[in-house]
Amino acid sequence: MKRTLILDTLKAVGESVTIKGWVHVRRDHGKIVFLDIRDRSGMIQVVGSEVTKDARPQSVVYITGTVQKRPDRLVNPNLPTGTVELSLQSIEVVSKAEELPLDMGAADLNLELPTMLDYRALTLRHPKQAAIFKIQAVIIDAFRRFLQEQDFTEFQSPNIISSAPEGGAEVFSLDYFGHQAFLSQSPQLYKSLLVSIYERVFSVNKVFRAEPSVTTRHLTEVVSLDAEMGFIEDYLEVMDMAESTIKFILAEVEKHCGPELTLLEATLPQVSDQLPRLKLTEALEIIYQRTGRDHRSEKDLDPEDEREICRYALEEFGSDLIFISHYYTKKKPFYTYADPENPEFNQGFDLLGRGVEWMTGGRRVHDYQEIQTRIKDWGMDPGKIELYLQSLRFGMPPLGGFAFGAERITMHLLQLPNIRLASLFPRDMERIDSRLSNQS
Amino acid sequence: MKRTLILDTLKAVGESVTIKGWVHVRRDHGKIVFLDIRDRSGMIQVVGSEVTKDARPQSVVYITGTVQKRPDRLVNPNLPTGTVELSLQSIEVVSKAEELPLDMGAADLNLELPTMLDYRALTLRHPKQAAIFKIQAVIIDAFRRFLQEQDFTEFQSPNIISSAPEGGAEVFSLDYFGHQAFLSQSPQLYKSLLVSIYERVFSVNKVFRAEPSVTTRHLTEVVSLDAEMGFIEDYLEVMDMAESTIKFILAEVEKHCGPELTLLEATLPQVSDQLPRLKLTEALEIIYQRTGRDHRSEKDLDPEDEREICRYALEEFGSDLIFISHYYTKKKPFYTYADPENPEFNQGFDLLGRGVEWMTGGRRVHDYQEIQTRIKDWGMDPGKIELYLQSLRFGMPPLGGFAFGAERITMHLLQLPNIRLASLFPRDMERIDSRLSNQS
Repeated sequence: MKRTLILDTLKAVGESVTIKGWVHVRRDHGKIVFLDIRDRSGMIQVVGSEVTKDARPQSVVYITGTVQKRPDRLVNPNLPTGTVELSLQSIEVVSKAEELPLDMGAADLNLELPTMLDYRALTLRHPKQAAIFKIQAVIIDAFRRFLQEQDFTEFQSPNIISSAPEGGAEVFSLDYFGHQAFLSQSPQLYKSLLVSIYERVFSVNKVFRAEPSVTTRHLTEVVSLDAEMGFIEDYLEVMDMAESTIKFILAEVEKHCGPELTLLEATLPQVSDQLPRLKLTEALEIIYQRTGRDHRSEKDLDPEDEREICRYALEEFGSDLIFISHYYTKKKPFYTYADPENPEFNQGFDLLGRGVEWMTGGRRVHDYQEIQTRIKDWGMDPGKIELYLQSLRFGMPPLGGFAFGAERITMHLLQLPNIRLASLFPRDMERIDSRLSNQS
Repeated sequence: MKRTLILDTLKAVGESVTIKGWVHVRRDHGKIVFLDIRDRSGMIQVVGSEVTKDARPQSVVYITGTVQKRPDRLVNPNLPTGTVELSLQSIEVVSKAEELPLDMGAADLNLELPTMLDYRALTLRHPKQAAIFKIQAVIIDAFRRFLQEQDFTEFQSPNIISSAPEGGAEVFSLDYFGHQAFLSQSPQLYKSLLVSIYERVFSVNKVFRAEPSVTTRHLTEVVSLDAEMGFIEDYLEVMDMAESTIKFILAEVEKHCGPELTLLEATLPQVSDQLPRLKLTEALEIIYQRTGRDHRSEKDLDPEDEREICRYALEEFGSDLIFISHYYTKKKPFYTYADPENPEFNQGFDLLGRGVEWMTGGRRVHDYQEIQTRIKDWGMDPGKIELYLQSLRFGMPPLGGFAFGAERITMHLLQLPNIRLASLFPRDMERIDSRLSNQS
């Protein structure tokens, strides 16, 4: 019989249908058995008698039965299909699950993270885990669609690179036919280059960090959402585009992920009409005024400063998000554009949300002479960024852009306690699917 | 003055506007200078007198001038803005290009491939090169949008893996905090696993092949378009989905890339209402009948067989594309589903187009007992595919899927002579942006 998606049983009351899915929960009450069946559209309760023991949790079953309206007192208001149930006529177990090591039917898995990841193929089936990556797919798609509407062209950025231009030990190296190659930490130089072809470009692309730190915020492989645009008047145009992008993403998540947000008890951040914008020195002054903590001679915000300035943004502007710009030029990458009025500070910015960094961006140097000076001052090897320099040598407009990690923004939007929960298959120092310590 | 996009000058005849872009071509006729200016929307001819020498090819310029209708005899029918030109009032050179090493104004670059790639930041600016990756962006976006409409969920597949499950020397290895790790050759096992969460999934994702071959068809890093679906009745359902996906992509390219296709003189492949479908043995029999070449005992199609069967498809069915299924089970990966009626052959398929392979797909084994037998028969180590096996151990529906490379389909659609021309920054044995022989 033709398959009916579970959600569509609502339109088939009184009819005989065949549903296909996984047993989410099985409850035996003597001869009467209740099965909650899950498919990609939702969940429904099935009632039958003398149901085969093979129809155990997570088994794949094809069930034919009659859709019945539930009596009012048995309606489940928390389920879209809570007004109906299926009276079982026949059941076929297509794939029998082994005995589960976890209670997948619980409202929360309540597992330690290592167990959650050891059984990733199973734990992802839990509705709360599955919801996280439904939302992540919407975030990524919203990023792309918004920029497409703004006339940005999508590109695919390379991951294997021949040198680590910005140096640092935190880069993975690989053997490339007898040469040393590296995994890209950022598509920055490629997206800048492509501004000279398409003016406005974006990419959804992997970046890799060999950071030897096991924190709740670090992964070795992440999905970077990157945008870059040319012919800007100033850095504020880039900030405007970054702000519109984030707001569009939030709106799309709100529009398409209602059930998932409810399930995860997640509250989207509050945003003001225009997000508050401060320079670093202004932020430090405000923090001093509010708390008496005097970091005004510091070169950056520390974690407590970030939390405090976010509290300020929420209290004063009703916004969970705030831009901080004009960090110290010397503390930023070589391509960051210095403020002409005070070159000690640059026209880069971070977007902070709920006390932590969500996104980074800014204007970049587009002048070939200036970038050569920078390369000297930053002690870099121009041979390692040849193609990028080529693009500036042959005419590059004023440009800027922004970037943020898909896992990080998923984590912060949903207020997850650990970034590993915002990655389907998180990689860190200690784990690539399995724990590395278990291996050779 | 506010910027007017070049295409919008058509709506501003008689008005003074400011355009911003690159000098594509400069022609000096005594004191009168003609400039073709390019921006992301198009190209326009600018006429001025005594124009600064700095406004040389590829320099970035801001030009203010009056939009004028061209006399009928000077209309350029090959240019969307061919009915107008801009009479220059003032020009500012924002970024002065160095003397070009190539004639970027030529209709064709006519460069040897190594030169094309040595100057990639520059050659990509040529309208024909830029058009290729505009089309590629549409191909990739069409793939995603079609599958979203079919209720597929997008996922991000990992690139760093802990073992090379299908073995082979053609895998890149990297140092991962003292452990050996690898770059993924395919998201196959992850997408299968995710069928047990979302039923239908797709990804746009990098895959890596350390193939030590320098052919016109090999890259070491490619963009793989992958889809997988559960609860199928048989492999034909997968083939139907693959066919609809390809047809949607072709339709979208036709709809959105008219000017680019014209510029590249590319003709999209012809397709029939239903693409022709043959089993391997049927194809070999037809080739024998048509040519007398008897490959009926061969285990695969050789390149000439592929060309011949494509000729057959075009002649008999008016289709440039044809599916070939039922290859030898033993010659395919361990998860390929054997045909129950004759297990020597499997329910995998290839889509051939214009004489070469475009796509591969098929039904996969979903039964845990059967996959264990396969693992033994194929001599594999189950410890290397633990998560994947976990997903089958706990209930997996009948499933199948398909995959194709973005570069490869771009190459074949546009009939480019070399796959390197279908990659923005192609990587091969000899090159990562720069030639590797130039390096340490």
